[in-house]
Amino acid sequence: MAVTHGFLPHYTVTSHLCSMAGFKQFPEGMRHVHQLRVRYADTDRMDMVYHGTYAAYLEAARVEMLRDAGWVYAELEKAGVLLPVVQLNLTYKRPARYDQLLDVRTHVVAEPTTKLCLRCEVYHQEDLLVTGDVILVFVDAQSGRPCRPPEGLADKMHELGLIAS
Amino acid sequence: MAVTHGFLPHYTVTSHLCSMAGFKQFPEGMRHVHQLRVRYADTDRMDMVYHGTYAAYLEAARVEMLRDAGWVYAELEKAGVLLPVVQLNLTYKRPARYDQLLDVRTHVVAEPTTKLCLRCEVYHQEDLLVTGDVILVFVDAQSGRPCRPPEGLADKMHELGLIAS
Amino acid sequence: MAVTHGFLPHYTVTSHLCSMAGFKQFPEGMRHVHQLRVRYADTDRMDMVYHGTYAAYLEAARVEMLRDAGWVYAELEKAGVLLPVVQLNLTYKRPARYDQLLDVRTHVVAEPTTKLCLRCEVYHQEDLLVTGDVILVFVDAQSGRPCRPPEGLADKMHELGLIAS
Amino acid sequence: MAVTHGFLPHYTVTSHLCSMAGFKQFPEGMRHVHQLRVRYADTDRMDMVYHGTYAAYLEAARVEMLRDAGWVYAELEKAGVLLPVVQLNLTYKRPARYDQLLDVRTHVVAEPTTKLCLRCEVYHQEDLLVTGDVILVFVDAQSGRPCRPPEGLADKMHELGLIAS
Repeated sequence: MAVTHGFLPHYTVTSHLCSMAGFKQFPEGMRHVHQLRVRYADTDRMDMVYHGTYAAYLEAARVEMLRDAGWVYAELEKAGVLLPVVQLNLTYKRPARYDQLLDVRTHVVAEPTTKLCLRCEVYHQEDLLVTGDVILVFVDAQSGRPCRPPEGLADKMHELGLIAS
Repeated sequence: MAVTHGFLPHYTVTSHLCSMAGFKQFPEGMRHVHQLRVRYADTDRMDMVYHGTYAAYLEAARVEMLRDAGWVYAELEKAGVLLPVVQLNLTYKRPARYDQLLDVRTHVVAEPTTKLCLRCEVYHQEDLLVTGDVILVFVDAQSGRPCRPPEGLADKMHELGLIAS
Repeated sequence: MAVTHGFLPHYTVTSHLCSMAGFKQFPEGMRHVHQLRVRYADTDRMDMVYHGTYAAYLEAARVEMLRDAGWVYAELEKAGVLLPVVQLNLTYKRPARYDQLLDVRTHVVAEPTTKLCLRCEVYHQEDLLVTGDVILVFVDAQSGRPCRPPEGLADKMHELGLIAS
Repeated sequence: MAVTHGFLPHYTVTSHLCSMAGFKQFPEGMRHVHQLRVRYADTDRMDMVYHGTYAAYLEAARVEMLRDAGWVYAELEKAGVLLPVVQLNLTYKRPARYDQLLDVRTHVVAEPTTKLCLRCEVYHQEDLLVTGDVILVFVDAQSGRPCRPPEGLADKMHELGLIAS
């Protein structure tokens, strides 16, 4: 059947984007889940995701975690708060493959101070592929010095159950 | 209010992922729309998306176009058909910025032969930022030689109204 | 023989870095040659350099061409002149492979105005792999508008024989 | 003065490539030094090298360390030995900036077994910017299982004084 424009729904369903993401309760605790698709650009000749690519995956995941919690990182920057990474520890258990739909589960592992300590776990379906511990520092863009987290952020993380006790 | 696990919806809404994507009719014709978020990793010190990053954006978009049309590129590869890029022409009109939600609109600009000729347009809202013309070649993985497109692909592209006349 | 520190030369030879680069006369004209090594990060699962990677290769090459001609792009930026890419046309003839030492040959294809039009050719030994035409625009960082090239740049390009006639 | 081809040296000097690299004795011990230039592609909008970029920097450095020690990693792969990264711990002390010439100093921090444990330090001149601990595993490509390091590799690392005691 040829598509006639008058009858075509404005948008067709694209299940690959309407992903099950957001905050979710797991047996081990509350996690934010961000879903992403492995691109060709992300792979290397060993036919797996290049180990350095995960830095960008984790970045995308934590930005969405903050957004879903109510903080848009781009807005934070405009307000003069930067959040550079000061430590990144990645452990590679199993390779991720091209075109896989990965879940990055993120939670907070310590009370936010000037530092935000995150644990990220990259899953393909039920397989844990990579774990990443990321430490970021809230920095005042003007002074260049560490500063407190945005008002209410720690409370919100607690409220969401995202901070591991 | 503290989140009690029993009452928490399994997943909370994440509007940023449930994007308006898929095939869509525009005044200028039918387009496949793929939506993506600009990551920090994608930017450069000029505070815009690095011009080389668009290669990966366009790749992600055409893979979803093929998927939404019924062909999973990863499956094509397993079946012995590769689809390398032989030409990429990018024209940069306006910069894309960090955290913007971009729409990549893709359509086919010529009858598929051994070549697949795509036109991609990267929009932020109503602003056209970048156009990209991509020529890919269907290649038989065994012989390394150009080959015909998968059975039914050209027909499907016509049916979807994706091929510019 | 064990290396004893007292006898070890301060630096051992590293032929891979002391590359034959700079301006060089070819039958087809004068070219700037920049040599680089393909990293694992640059490859994809098709066991070749990802097609988007060449944007960074060409960028590295033209920055060294400018440096060898007497202009440090980083200094230009500090002086308020940006040089964004407005067009990039890449044609892929043969794949580049992991660990290959590639030569990027660059020359100027038109009299520099507010635009700088470059032709780049990526070689592995005698094999031409990729050609890239890049158009950049000199932009005044303050006004955001196109501006003239730095004083003396066009003359120097002529003097070096880099501008194709 | 116009360049006349007959008088032009075949190659002009390009000091930026003839870098001081290879094995070098430091007060704290022997190190392999790999020098690289920060590209625009490597930076992000915070005007520094994106934190994920260092994975590729460290990869380039260890491949050159192996090459200078007598092992070409690409040849190892052809011989059926892979060397995937299983752990990467990065600590960011100071930002690297566009166009800086960075030294990556690498040494071995434990007797090579099926694992190769490296410590990498990224310097700009005398400033230590980033430290990276990388654990790689020698893997038999056929069986997919960990295997011994190539014959003679551990001895050579000792001979070079590269293994921290």
